Amino acid sequence: MMTQIDRLVGSSAFTDLYIEVQQFYATHMQLLDSGAAEEWATIFTENGTFDAPTLPQPTRGRAELTTMMRETAATLADAGEVRRHWHGMIALTPREDDSLHVRCYALVFSSIRSGESRLHRVRVCEDVLVREDGQLRVKTRRVTRDDLG
Amino acid sequence: MMTQIDRLVGSSAFTDLYIEVQQFYATHMQLLDSGAAEEWATIFTENGTFDAPTLPQPTRGRAELTTMMRETAATLADAGEVRRHWHGMIALTPREDDSLHVRCYALVFSSIRSGESRLHRVRVCEDVLVREDGQLRVKTRRVTRDDLG
Amino acid sequence: MMTQIDRLVGSSAFTDLYIEVQQFYATHMQLLDSGAAEEWATIFTENGTFDAPTLPQPTRGRAELTTMMRETAATLADAGEVRRHWHGMIALTPREDDSLHVRCYALVFSSIRSGESRLHRVRVCEDVLVREDGQLRVKTRRVTRDDLG
Repeated sequence: MMTQIDRLVGSSAFTDLYIEVQQFYATHMQLLDSGAAEEWATIFTENGTFDAPTLPQPTRGRAELTTMMRETAATLADAGEVRRHWHGMIALTPREDDSLHVRCYALVFSSIRSGESRLHRVRVCEDVLVREDGQLRVKTRRVTRDDLG
Repeated sequence: MMTQIDRLVGSSAFTDLYIEVQQFYATHMQLLDSGAAEEWATIFTENGTFDAPTLPQPTRGRAELTTMMRETAATLADAGEVRRHWHGMIALTPREDDSLHVRCYALVFSSIRSGESRLHRVRVCEDVLVREDGQLRVKTRRVTRDDLG
Repeated sequence: MMTQIDRLVGSSAFTDLYIEVQQFYATHMQLLDSGAAEEWATIFTENGTFDAPTLPQPTRGRAELTTMMRETAATLADAGEVRRHWHGMIALTPREDDSLHVRCYALVFSSIRSGESRLHRVRVCEDVLVREDGQLRVKTRRVTRDDLG
């Protein structure tokens, strides 16, 4: 039996959205990994949330997101560590309210300058993306880690 | 000299198919990794086959596929291990009989609850996908492992 | 504020290009990893360049590219080593001169026959792609390595 999402997949509307999400994640993660904290935070909605198992509560809003990311970037720079975030295996579900629900896998790779490269984390990421002024933004992001129970 | 596939790439028909395959693999692998053996098996045709170097002969049909996957899922659950299957570098070739031939790379990541995450396998996957009742299904899957000669 | 690229993303023209680039990389890397040096080199323009931090100067032109790749392939074959190149997180920017600028992440996985599979390198790849006789080709490729300062 075909579901609503089954009928949508294969249409050019779905295809365009899927690629928009891929380009969005590529741009988004390249900003993150380059340490551009403030620019990165603008890819969330004004009150966008980021939730991860290591956070006592979700980080909320661009100011908090920028602060969180700046601290991480400073710690990594001090350690001579470069991280690369990969989103892949993207399962995209457009909803009737025009939001996009994504469940995807997310890898983090880590390299030490003049050292080794290694797999750092294997995660699952669930995003709700919305459109503002024509552009996709993260309304909510929830990340889980495979190595945590 | 341009081949038939060269002429197809860049057309919206090819693009829509390519994205359909990406979404198909994302959904398919997320079912697999969540241990939903029976649902996962329905993504093969009724007599679909799965061949891998560690199998004495190809697994054939949904009943056998479900059993194989249930056993693997139970073993992993007992060991507190979570696997994530990634398909990428998808080279797609539509054939004249409307089947889709895919050769792609396939990674398997493994995490132990309260332990480490690591790269488990590097594989190459060759699929023949067919459409049934409007939906893509795996008719044949052949997986090889880079660490086996 | 929307930029020119923001306006393009989501259009079917951008979508088709993005998928063409994905299929191009998949085909390209599968040739590379199979050791098909001469075929691989034809995916560059006649005077295409490849620059990497371990090269004293960029490799230029198909003859040099073929030689470089043949030597690498022979070394790997002698060592019983198989490599897999993955491009992902593709940020695509079409330019007004019809060239395509890509900044993407690039992983290299390595497996030893009857041995282990491991992550070998984490890299960033910047390509300028142009169209010749209807097909995409690499005009310039610049690769950096996260583990090198």
